Amino acid sequence: MPEIFVINGVNLGSLGRRRPEVYGTLTLNDIEKLLSDEFPEVTFEFKQMDHEGGMVSCIWGAAESAGIIINPGAWTHYSYALHDALESVDAPKVEVHLSNVHAREEWRRFSVVSPAVDAVVTGMGAFGYVAAAAYLLSQGADL
Amino acid sequence: MPEIFVINGVNLGSLGRRRPEVYGTLTLNDIEKLLSDEFPEVTFEFKQMDHEGGMVSCIWGAAESAGIIINPGAWTHYSYALHDALESVDAPKVEVHLSNVHAREEWRRFSVVSPAVDAVVTGMGAFGYVAAAAYLLSQGADL
Amino acid sequence: MPEIFVINGVNLGSLGRRRPEVYGTLTLNDIEKLLSDEFPEVTFEFKQMDHEGGMVSCIWGAAESAGIIINPGAWTHYSYALHDALESVDAPKVEVHLSNVHAREEWRRFSVVSPAVDAVVTGMGAFGYVAAAAYLLSQGADL
Amino acid sequence: MPEIFVINGVNLGSLGRRRPEVYGTLTLNDIEKLLSDEFPEVTFEFKQMDHEGGMVSCIWGAAESAGIIINPGAWTHYSYALHDALESVDAPKVEVHLSNVHAREEWRRFSVVSPAVDAVVTGMGAFGYVAAAAYLLSQGADL
Amino acid sequence: MPEIFVINGVNLGSLGRRRPEVYGTLTLNDIEKLLSDEFPEVTFEFKQMDHEGGMVSCIWGAAESAGIIINPGAWTHYSYALHDALESVDAPKVEVHLSNVHAREEWRRFSVVSPAVDAVVTGMGAFGYVAAAAYLLSQGADL
Amino acid sequence: MPEIFVINGVNLGSLGRRRPEVYGTLTLNDIEKLLSDEFPEVTFEFKQMDHEGGMVSCIWGAAESAGIIINPGAWTHYSYALHDALESVDAPKVEVHLSNVHAREEWRRFSVVSPAVDAVVTGMGAFGYVAAAAYLLSQGADL
Amino acid sequence: MPEIFVINGVNLGSLGRRRPEVYGTLTLNDIEKLLSDEFPEVTFEFKQMDHEGGMVSCIWGAAESAGIIINPGAWTHYSYALHDALESVDAPKVEVHLSNVHAREEWRRFSVVSPAVDAVVTGMGAFGYVAAAAYLLSQGADL
Amino acid sequence: MPEIFVINGVNLGSLGRRRPEVYGTLTLNDIEKLLSDEFPEVTFEFKQMDHEGGMVSCIWGAAESAGIIINPGAWTHYSYALHDALESVDAPKVEVHLSNVHAREEWRRFSVVSPAVDAVVTGMGAFGYVAAAAYLLSQGADL
Amino acid sequence: MPEIFVINGVNLGSLGRRRPEVYGTLTLNDIEKLLSDEFPEVTFEFKQMDHEGGMVSCIWGAAESAGIIINPGAWTHYSYALHDALESVDAPKVEVHLSNVHAREEWRRFSVVSPAVDAVVTGMGAFGYVAAAAYLLSQGADL
Amino acid sequence: MPEIFVINGVNLGSLGRRRPEVYGTLTLNDIEKLLSDEFPEVTFEFKQMDHEGGMVSCIWGAAESAGIIINPGAWTHYSYALHDALESVDAPKVEVHLSNVHAREEWRRFSVVSPAVDAVVTGMGAFGYVAAAAYLLSQGADL
Amino acid sequence: MPEIFVINGVNLGSLGRRRPEVYGTLTLNDIEKLLSDEFPEVTFEFKQMDHEGGMVSCIWGAAESAGIIINPGAWTHYSYALHDALESVDAPKVEVHLSNVHAREEWRRFSVVSPAVDAVVTGMGAFGYVAAAAYLLSQGADL
Amino acid sequence: MPEIFVINGVNLGSLGRRRPEVYGTLTLNDIEKLLSDEFPEVTFEFKQMDHEGGMVSCIWGAAESAGIIINPGAWTHYSYALHDALESVDAPKVEVHLSNVHAREEWRRFSVVSPAVDAVVTGMGAFGYVAAAAYLLSQGADL
Repeated sequence: MPEIFVINGVNLGSLGRRRPEVYGTLTLNDIEKLLSDEFPEVTFEFKQMDHEGGMVSCIWGAAESAGIIINPGAWTHYSYALHDALESVDAPKVEVHLSNVHAREEWRRFSVVSPAVDAVVTGMGAFGYVAAAAYLLSQGADL
Repeated sequence: MPEIFVINGVNLGSLGRRRPEVYGTLTLNDIEKLLSDEFPEVTFEFKQMDHEGGMVSCIWGAAESAGIIINPGAWTHYSYALHDALESVDAPKVEVHLSNVHAREEWRRFSVVSPAVDAVVTGMGAFGYVAAAAYLLSQGADL
Repeated sequence: MPEIFVINGVNLGSLGRRRPEVYGTLTLNDIEKLLSDEFPEVTFEFKQMDHEGGMVSCIWGAAESAGIIINPGAWTHYSYALHDALESVDAPKVEVHLSNVHAREEWRRFSVVSPAVDAVVTGMGAFGYVAAAAYLLSQGADL
Repeated sequence: MPEIFVINGVNLGSLGRRRPEVYGTLTLNDIEKLLSDEFPEVTFEFKQMDHEGGMVSCIWGAAESAGIIINPGAWTHYSYALHDALESVDAPKVEVHLSNVHAREEWRRFSVVSPAVDAVVTGMGAFGYVAAAAYLLSQGADL
Repeated sequence: MPEIFVINGVNLGSLGRRRPEVYGTLTLNDIEKLLSDEFPEVTFEFKQMDHEGGMVSCIWGAAESAGIIINPGAWTHYSYALHDALESVDAPKVEVHLSNVHAREEWRRFSVVSPAVDAVVTGMGAFGYVAAAAYLLSQGADL
Repeated sequence: MPEIFVINGVNLGSLGRRRPEVYGTLTLNDIEKLLSDEFPEVTFEFKQMDHEGGMVSCIWGAAESAGIIINPGAWTHYSYALHDALESVDAPKVEVHLSNVHAREEWRRFSVVSPAVDAVVTGMGAFGYVAAAAYLLSQGADL
Repeated sequence: MPEIFVINGVNLGSLGRRRPEVYGTLTLNDIEKLLSDEFPEVTFEFKQMDHEGGMVSCIWGAAESAGIIINPGAWTHYSYALHDALESVDAPKVEVHLSNVHAREEWRRFSVVSPAVDAVVTGMGAFGYVAAAAYLLSQGADL
Repeated sequence: MPEIFVINGVNLGSLGRRRPEVYGTLTLNDIEKLLSDEFPEVTFEFKQMDHEGGMVSCIWGAAESAGIIINPGAWTHYSYALHDALESVDAPKVEVHLSNVHAREEWRRFSVVSPAVDAVVTGMGAFGYVAAAAYLLSQGADL
Repeated sequence: MPEIFVINGVNLGSLGRRRPEVYGTLTLNDIEKLLSDEFPEVTFEFKQMDHEGGMVSCIWGAAESAGIIINPGAWTHYSYALHDALESVDAPKVEVHLSNVHAREEWRRFSVVSPAVDAVVTGMGAFGYVAAAAYLLSQGADL
Repeated sequence: MPEIFVINGVNLGSLGRRRPEVYGTLTLNDIEKLLSDEFPEVTFEFKQMDHEGGMVSCIWGAAESAGIIINPGAWTHYSYALHDALESVDAPKVEVHLSNVHAREEWRRFSVVSPAVDAVVTGMGAFGYVAAAAYLLSQGADL
Repeated sequence: MPEIFVINGVNLGSLGRRRPEVYGTLTLNDIEKLLSDEFPEVTFEFKQMDHEGGMVSCIWGAAESAGIIINPGAWTHYSYALHDALESVDAPKVEVHLSNVHAREEWRRFSVVSPAVDAVVTGMGAFGYVAAAAYLLSQGADL
Repeated sequence: MPEIFVINGVNLGSLGRRRPEVYGTLTLNDIEKLLSDEFPEVTFEFKQMDHEGGMVSCIWGAAESAGIIINPGAWTHYSYALHDALESVDAPKVEVHLSNVHAREEWRRFSVVSPAVDAVVTGMGAFGYVAAAAYLLSQGADL
């Protein structure tokens, strides 16, 4: 049974009550359930961390998995540590952002992480996690 | 029956034979078939244009549709005309790029179009179109 | 009877229904009528184009006219092709923008076209065309 | 009888003899007369100041008028004080420049004042004042 | 009895009626009274100037005082003249801004004056003046 | 009894012995005592953290408090994670810096955190904490 | 018989009458004749287009030819669409500019197209086309 | 008898007591005497102003003189108003700075005034005025 | 017996298996052994941390040691927190990078840490640690 | 018999053995022979220098020649001394680069020399010298 | 008898015939004579060099002299080698430029040398050398 | 016996007496002796040059050696000629700087040479040469 890591970064623990007009009303638990319902054949390792160091360890721990879905939150914009961890790990990787970061502050448009992942999804809200998982699963297919 | 416009920009007509190591071997026809197979309940208006003016008209023509999937090709990086057309149209919009533009030349990282769409998918190859369509269809759902 | 070309660029065909809170509710037809009513002694060649190449031809075609009023729309910000066409043509030229481009996104503040025209009018709405025409007509006068 | 303030900034007192190849041969008196002749139904408060502080007071004094026509001269490029005064005043405002500032030194292309006005006219010489006044008067009309 | 200079710059004379949603509804008189009430043991020299030259003189005149509280208004962003005057004067100096300048336009975030003062207070509204005065008075204390 | 969180970031644990010529000789304990003495009617939650993740949690934990006083130390200049946490929390917030950051290295002049707080105090040494607390308490007053 | 495509971009149709002090007095017909006379053993496909989309098609149509000589005119400075088309095509490619673009406006110095061609010739006037053709023909030689 | 204007800008009235380690201990009176002693055959119009507007007038008033020596003080770095006044006046002009502005803060290295004068002298202290006067007098000579 | 701290930052725990073509095949254990073999007279405190906060503490803990060898990994490029910790500590400090950071991505060329150390060694692989230790030991010598 | 100077700059003496995958396998001697064979009616003064000062002298020595072909090597990117020498000399001048400098490191794209020459040829390998010579000889022709 | 070094850099050997409209018609010999006539009590060591290395030696050789007058020519804009030589030498130093470098190309406005000299004179033509020598001689005086 | 080239650039001939507070009191001779004493089994070719051209030749002459230790002095910051020479030569190369260039002027932080060497050592004073030699010798070892 394929295992996919879903790693959520800093401040995402309060999803659902944090600025819902921007990030929506679903909680991380809701998103986890959404994924499990949509892909019952997948084991999701669902994490949330406010410590960069923990997230780095988590990425290394996911090295052998079927894929990584990562939403680095605000670390997106400066954590080269995450870049290097992701760059070093062979599993396929998708970066996800809930909001359309290109329609907000200028600094949200630039991600130091993106060059180290395979794909990026922004602005789809909770559905972005579903799309990322579907992509990872499609990778083995004869598309 | 919902109607989704899939609008492909400049140089994408030669998909499949153009730099396949970057863009893959699927042609636009293959992608169109992929979408129809995956979403038989949707009517896809599938377009490809090498003229910016044609693409602008096409976007206006899609204003009443259930959604727009747009891959602007190289126009992504300078066509404020596409930005303004997309910004003026109410249908939900997803920008798609086949390759991970963040892992190539520096200038490919910046899109003048993104602030005018709802969501962006990059690096998923042909699957990006599927993800975009799925997202558009999910918008009416009680996710 | 003096002939003035009024050349409107990309996305301006939908004036009146496109973001009326920014661009107003008048259509291009309304503006054309406004000019004809205001200056019955002038022949206005009134154009709108979504193809940059067409606009270039149009500028060359206006080379012998009494003046050119041009609203390049989004091309304002990147079309050096329009710059070069305008720079090559001797007729007096006025660049017009309906909205005050300086009070919107940062990139709207810079025009690649302005160094190639004689005058620029921004933010006067439809009246900007009237002001431009009046200016062109005043040029022969002993002001 | 509507009252319009025409406020000219630093160095404009010598108009007519200052670099006439750039700014023309009309003096401020000529421009004042031009406006009065053109719009006899309007009272023009015609000012010229070389002190930024005086210009700020003048803008505040015009707060209740039917409109402000302002040519800030070189202050255009650094006086955020004028920006703030204009931003605070409700009367409609037009920024006027005699020459086409976009075809001269690079630094003349950027105005710190423009985001705080309603409209900008550049390059029309003395006629720019006429156009600005006509625009202000048209604002009440059913254009 | 210690003497503190409170020097307010350009456009601040209209405090209370100028954009109250940004700057609050208190007038300079209100702030002066607030200070006097709060610190009856201090003589406040309360000034407001729209002329940069006057403000420079005022700073020099405060050189021997117990401290300077300065709100340079828009001059904050370009008046190196104020920087040099402040840098030359030995009295302790606090720069005050009513609004949080970091949450407004980009250019309001940079102050050319700050390197020449001892402390900066922004965003506390009228209370910022009280905080500045308290700080100046605390300087002699054995904190 | 109102509760105010005082959150000190990285490297501030060694205050008093770390570069005293820049940061002064008071320790965090001294500052805590200073606040308690000055405002006996307030409960101060006094924290110091060298882990960014801990500081983020701490900010969330202060969401219901009467106010937050935050000195992010070096994180000021890159931790968008703190920005996002602060932006999400409704309590009034004051950013404090002991030294005048504008008179030191260039990079110390720019704070990524400031747009997410209500007020900023720099250069007042330990007194900055007192000023911040006084401001927070004044917020409920009829100033 | 080798076939070489000579593709001229926007505004070049008016060569000979457009700013002859910059671009010379030869027309495109003159240049075509010059090439035919100089290289009678070559078939020249001589094109001029004011539509970017047409030029893109033209480049793809030249993919199997012995070489491409391209003068993109003003598109040189922003058309990443041309860059991508040229990058995708295997034929040897030479970019030609009539004037020395480095001795004119600053923006003319930067070409977005150059990284996608094999060679660049600027400032040789009509002779640049001859030099480009000679180079392309020399490529098969044992130089 | 030739007349030379010596115009000193903002903050220079306190020369001699203002940061003497940077600007020296001579006062403006000392410099005036120095010039008169050195060049008894010249009438020096010696001015100092803290108002930019006054300095502009002063420059216009010197238009017919044998030369202008100007030390704009901090205005050097932002007063385009002085630039425009100097540019409009035909008398030979020398810009003088007492200190070597290139060995101080970065922003002191750039002068907006320099393109409008004939010569610049920096770092020679009070002797810079003597050198400037000598230069102006040498202009009529058969050097 | 002199004590030297060797502090390795984020992602360095996986040295030897992380991108060996860039970082070599030696593990941290190998490097520790290399140092002990080479300098038996030294006690090495060998650390690796993925938490920035832990690294800050570690630097403070090394304040009294004979020297610090630090490889901050990706934190090199943004952790001003490390800069400030290092700047505050008196022990001699050497920054080490295994690869030649100047021959990789542009952003790897700039270190925010370097101004706070005594020396920097890059590109020598594991030998860089040896060189750093040798340098620290030489500091007491009469070189 | 016309005399053309061919001046090769720093590091070009090792042409043929230096990075042949970039610069080709021909030596300078081969190129000299190529030119002599192709243009037997021309006297070529063929130089190579590793000293900038020598190259400057060489340019001055070529002032009366029929033309200069110059490949400045790495000096292209910083030697304003060569710019000034070339700008001062009336002979027609062509700058030649063997490789396509626009498809290599970013800094190779900018030449400080180009504004001072008549034409630039890049990316044609040894043939670039032939093209340059042919251009120089064509200058006297009635092209 | 005081000894002053006058060191002229690259391309200055051709002074008098090089672009006389910019640099004047005097030769270096004329300037040397001018200095000797003006200051018979001084020994002038008059040098001109086209080799940067020679100029560096020359500066070191002047370390014990009464002063250095240096015109680095184009090296002004990039030769940090000259900066370092000048910075290391204790003799008073004046940088001289014949033309007003601020009224020419943008890159001529920035000097890498200026922070290492005592004074700078630009735009005074040959008289600049006289002013520089007078300044150096005045340094011992009781001005 | 292995041969290592030690190449010192511009201004380094005066080491020991040039700014000893920055560069130390050892002369180049001292450093040469230090190396010979430390590594008696190595032949050191010890060079110092003030001419860039000589340094280029020297690098080429070291192509077959066991390694190059290079301290380019101020050329570090602009000599792309040295970059290209080093890039073309296969011997292992170490760039050495005596002082910590990152703690001085901003421009000293950027080296155009570093991408072309294997390793960089800065801030170790004379010991840096020893470290560089040790590294070069270690390269053949089974570290």
